[in-house]
Amino acid sequence: MRRLVKVYDTTLRDGTQGEGVSFSMEDKVRLTSRLDAIGFHYIEGGWPGSNPKDLRFFRRMQDVTLKHAKLAAFSMTRRAGGATESDPNMRALVEAGAPVATIVGKSWDFHVTHALETTLPENVEMIRDSIAWLRPRMDEVIFDAEHFFDGFRANRDYALQTLKAAEAAGAHWLVLCDTNGGTLPQALVEILREVKTHIRTPFGIHVHNDAECAVANTLAAVLEGAGQVQGTINGYGERCGNANLVSVIPSLMLKLGVDCIPEPGLRELRDFSRFTSELANRKPWAAQPYVGDSAFAHKGGMHVSAVAKHPETYEHVDPEAVGNHRRVLVSELSGKSNILFKAREFGIDLDHETPDSRKILERLKALEDQGFQFEGAEASFELLMERALGRYTPFFELEAYRVIVEEQSASGEPVAEATVRVRVKGMLEHTAAAGNGPVNALDHALRKALEEFYPSLKQMRLLDYKVRILDESKGTAAKTRVLITSGDGEETWGTVGVADNIIEASWQALVDSIEYKLRRDR
Amino acid sequence: MRRLVKVYDTTLRDGTQGEGVSFSMEDKVRLTSRLDAIGFHYIEGGWPGSNPKDLRFFRRMQDVTLKHAKLAAFSMTRRAGGATESDPNMRALVEAGAPVATIVGKSWDFHVTHALETTLPENVEMIRDSIAWLRPRMDEVIFDAEHFFDGFRANRDYALQTLKAAEAAGAHWLVLCDTNGGTLPQALVEILREVKTHIRTPFGIHVHNDAECAVANTLAAVLEGAGQVQGTINGYGERCGNANLVSVIPSLMLKLGVDCIPEPGLRELRDFSRFTSELANRKPWAAQPYVGDSAFAHKGGMHVSAVAKHPETYEHVDPEAVGNHRRVLVSELSGKSNILFKAREFGIDLDHETPDSRKILERLKALEDQGFQFEGAEASFELLMERALGRYTPFFELEAYRVIVEEQSASGEPVAEATVRVRVKGMLEHTAAAGNGPVNALDHALRKALEEFYPSLKQMRLLDYKVRILDESKGTAAKTRVLITSGDGEETWGTVGVADNIIEASWQALVDSIEYKLRRDR
Repeated sequence: MRRLVKVYDTTLRDGTQGEGVSFSMEDKVRLTSRLDAIGFHYIEGGWPGSNPKDLRFFRRMQDVTLKHAKLAAFSMTRRAGGATESDPNMRALVEAGAPVATIVGKSWDFHVTHALETTLPENVEMIRDSIAWLRPRMDEVIFDAEHFFDGFRANRDYALQTLKAAEAAGAHWLVLCDTNGGTLPQALVEILREVKTHIRTPFGIHVHNDAECAVANTLAAVLEGAGQVQGTINGYGERCGNANLVSVIPSLMLKLGVDCIPEPGLRELRDFSRFTSELANRKPWAAQPYVGDSAFAHKGGMHVSAVAKHPETYEHVDPEAVGNHRRVLVSELSGKSNILFKAREFGIDLDHETPDSRKILERLKALEDQGFQFEGAEASFELLMERALGRYTPFFELEAYRVIVEEQSASGEPVAEATVRVRVKGMLEHTAAAGNGPVNALDHALRKALEEFYPSLKQMRLLDYKVRILDESKGTAAKTRVLITSGDGEETWGTVGVADNIIEASWQALVDSIEYKLRRDR
Repeated sequence: MRRLVKVYDTTLRDGTQGEGVSFSMEDKVRLTSRLDAIGFHYIEGGWPGSNPKDLRFFRRMQDVTLKHAKLAAFSMTRRAGGATESDPNMRALVEAGAPVATIVGKSWDFHVTHALETTLPENVEMIRDSIAWLRPRMDEVIFDAEHFFDGFRANRDYALQTLKAAEAAGAHWLVLCDTNGGTLPQALVEILREVKTHIRTPFGIHVHNDAECAVANTLAAVLEGAGQVQGTINGYGERCGNANLVSVIPSLMLKLGVDCIPEPGLRELRDFSRFTSELANRKPWAAQPYVGDSAFAHKGGMHVSAVAKHPETYEHVDPEAVGNHRRVLVSELSGKSNILFKAREFGIDLDHETPDSRKILERLKALEDQGFQFEGAEASFELLMERALGRYTPFFELEAYRVIVEEQSASGEPVAEATVRVRVKGMLEHTAAAGNGPVNALDHALRKALEEFYPSLKQMRLLDYKVRILDESKGTAAKTRVLITSGDGEETWGTVGVADNIIEASWQALVDSIEYKLRRDR
C-alpha cells in the first residue's frame, strides 16, 4: 500500500496575502467546491476573527456540504494575559462552525519578546490554553508553529517547548512553518531529524518560497515523515509565495510513490491551476512546472524531432498525467495541431483533410492571432464553428449602437445610456435604456429590442464579466478581451469578445451570449 | 578562507530556448558586458555551429575585452561516423575565438540509440575525440553530460563511462546535466555521492526547473562539492526554464558561506535581473525570490508592525544585500501600522494617537469598503492622505465629461469620442477628442484641456491599464476597479478608481494620475 500524505490548501487565507491576490466571497465558495471535488483533505477558508468577509464566508459555507475536504478556520492563539473563553479570536473560531481549527503560535523566542512583546512562559501558556480550550469544541485542532526553523536555530529548547505544549494540550497535528521562507533544504532536514525524536504527534510542513526552495523543502519534509503538506495553488502567498501545491502534488504522486489526491484530481491540475489564476485575475505563469503552457513546449529542432519519436527523451513526465499537453513551438504545423487539439477538447473531431475543418481552422487561427482565447468561452467557440461552416443564421442584425456616459459635477453620479438599432424578423427595433455602466446599459437596450420577439431571454442573466488587457504596456490604447458568463437557471455558458475598444469587445461577447441562448432554445 | 564556486551563465544560449525569449546581437553584447562587470566567471555566448547570428556575436566579441569572465562557445560533439577535424561544429567552435569550449555529449544510453541513432561505443568515441581535438586549441574545455541523471538511473555504467571518456580526453570540467528537469534533490544527491567516487576532475551542475527544484538541486550539488553552477538570469530557458542564478547566487553567498561573485555585484542583482527582463521583453516576475517587487513587501498588519521594529522578524535577508528594498502594502488586511509606515514613506509623520492619523484611517476604511485597494496605487494613497488632512488643492476641477461610443454596421469600426469641461486656473476649458476606446478618448480630451496650462504633462504616458470586476457574480452591473500605471521617464506611479461604472472608475484613476504628476512637478 502506498503511503498517504494529506494536502492542506491555504490559498484562501495565506494565498490572499500575496500582492494583488484577492477573492470575492463568491470566488471563495467556488474555489472551495473545486478543491473539495479534486480531493484536497483540508481547505483553510480564512481567519474569522480578523475580518468580517472571512466570517461571512464561514457562515455561507454552513449551507454547503463538502464531500471530501474538511474546512479549517485559522487564528492566532489567545491574547497575552487574557482569558481564553472570552478571547474574540477564539470565540470567532468556534462561531465559524468549521470542523477544523488551525492555531498559529510563536516558536521563535525573539518573536515572542520583540514582536508579541510578552514573556516566553506566557507564550507557551497561550499555546497550551488555546489548544486545550478548542480541543473539545472542534473535530480537529492543528498547531502551526510559526517561524519554527528560525526559532530552532535561535533557541532550540524553547522552540521544542512550544511544540510539546501543543502536543500536551491535544493538538492533532504539529505543523512546522518556515514563515520567512529562507531555510534551505539541507538545514531543514537536519532540524526535522532532531525534532522527530522529541514529538509523537503527526507533523506537517508549511514553507514559503523566499529562497526559491519551497517545493524542495516540502518534498524533503515528506521524505522525513511529514504526513501533511500545506501550500497554495500556483504558490500564491505573501512576498514570494507559499509552497506551490500544483508542483508538490504531482512530484509526490508521480515521482515519490506517495498518494495524496485521487488520480482523476491529478489530471485536473492544469485546469484547476488556470481556474484559480482566472479568479485571482492573475496572468497564468507560462513556465509553471507541470501545468504551464511552456512546461511541455519544445522549441529546439533536435528536441522536437526526438520528442516526436520518443516523448520521454525531453519530457520528465507524461503531460496528460496533470492534464497538460505537448506543444511544438517552431513549425507552422504546430499551430494546426494546437487547434485540432483544442477542437477535440470541445468534442469536435476535425482532421486535416476535409474542407470544413480547414475553414474552421483558418477562422480560428485568424481569431487567435487577434487575441481571442476560447478557454472558458465554449459558447463562442461553438458559434465560431457554425459561422465558419456557413450554417449560421443570426437571430438579429445590428444596424447601430451608441453608448453615452456622462458626468455633471453638479449631480456627482455618472449616467450611462445606450441606444440600439437592430433588425429582428424583418422589423427595425430602436430602443434606449440606462444602466450602471456602459455595458449594462447596452445589455438593457438590446434586451428591450429582443425580448418581445424572444421571450425566453427573460430567463437569462449575466453572471460574470471579466476584462483582461492584452499587451498591457500600451495602457488604455491596448487590446481588450472580455469574457462573459451567462446562465438561465439550467445551463451556464461563456462567451468572448476582443477589440481595441472595450465597449465593442463587450458587445461581441454580449451578442454571442444571446445568440447561444436563442440557438439552444430553438 | 571561504570556498569559491564558479558561476557559468547560459542566458544567451539556453535562456533563449525559453518561450518568447530572444535577444538581438546588440542585446547579447550588452548582457555580456554586464555579466562580466558583475563578476560572473563564464558566459556562454551561443552555439556558433548552429546559427549564423551566434557566429556573428562571437566575431563581434573578438573586439571586446572582458575584465573578469571567460567567454564560452557551445557545441555538440562531432557527428557520428565523421572525422573531428572536418566537423563543421568543431571548426566553428575554434573559429568563434572564445577561450572556452563547452561540449555537450549524451550520457543516457536510450538517447544514444533512439535519438542520436548511433551505437553506444561510437558515442563514447565522439566525446573522447571532440574533447581531445579541442584540448590543445582552447584555454579550457568543459564537458556537459546531457541527461546525466536520467542516464545514470537507466544505465549507471554507461553514464559513468561517458564521464570517464571526457576525463581521459582532458576535459577541465565535467558538468552533470538534468536536462529534462525532473530529478528531485534527494535522488540527485544520491547519484552525486556515487559519481564523486569515480572521477577526479572538478564537476559542475546544470539543471532545469520542470519539478520546481532547480535552485534546490543546484545548492545541493554545491554542498556535495560542485565547483561550478550553470544557470540563467531569472531562470529563463526551455520549457520551465533553467536554474535561476539570481536565486542561487545570494543563497550561496548569504546562507552557505560560499563565494561566487564579488560583493558589489551581489548588490546589483535586482537591477541586473530587471535589465535582463527588459532586454528579453518579459514582464518582471513580481514574486521573484530576493529581487522581485513583492519579495520584501508586507501586507498583513501584524507583519508590518513587527518589521517596522525588527526587520528580521519577517525578512530572511536584508533586502539591500541584493539591491532590493522593503515595501509596505496597504489593503483591507492592513492595520494602523501599515498606514503609519506608508505615511512615513511619503514624508508625513503620523503617530497612532493624533486626530490626523485617525482621519486618514477612517477615510481609508471607507474607501476600502467601497472596493478600493491601494496595492500598486501608491500615488492615489498619497493623494488620499493629503485630501483627508484637508491639505489638498486640486489642479483642475471637473464640470462635466461625456463619452460616446458608436457603431454603425455599415462602417464596422466603432468610434469613441469624449468631451471634457474642466475649470483650470479660473478658465473654463471645453475640449473633445477621439480614441481607441472610451478611456483612451477621455485621456486625450483631458490632456487637450490641461497641457496648455501644465506643459509637463506632455512627458507623461499611461503605461498599464488593469480592470477588475468586484463581486463578479453581478455581471455587467458589478462594481469595477481600475488600476492605471503611469510614467514620465523618471518615475512610475500607480493610481486607482472604483465605481459601478467602468468609465467613472477609469476617470478617477486618470485624474489621480495627472494630479500626482502635477504635485510632484510643482
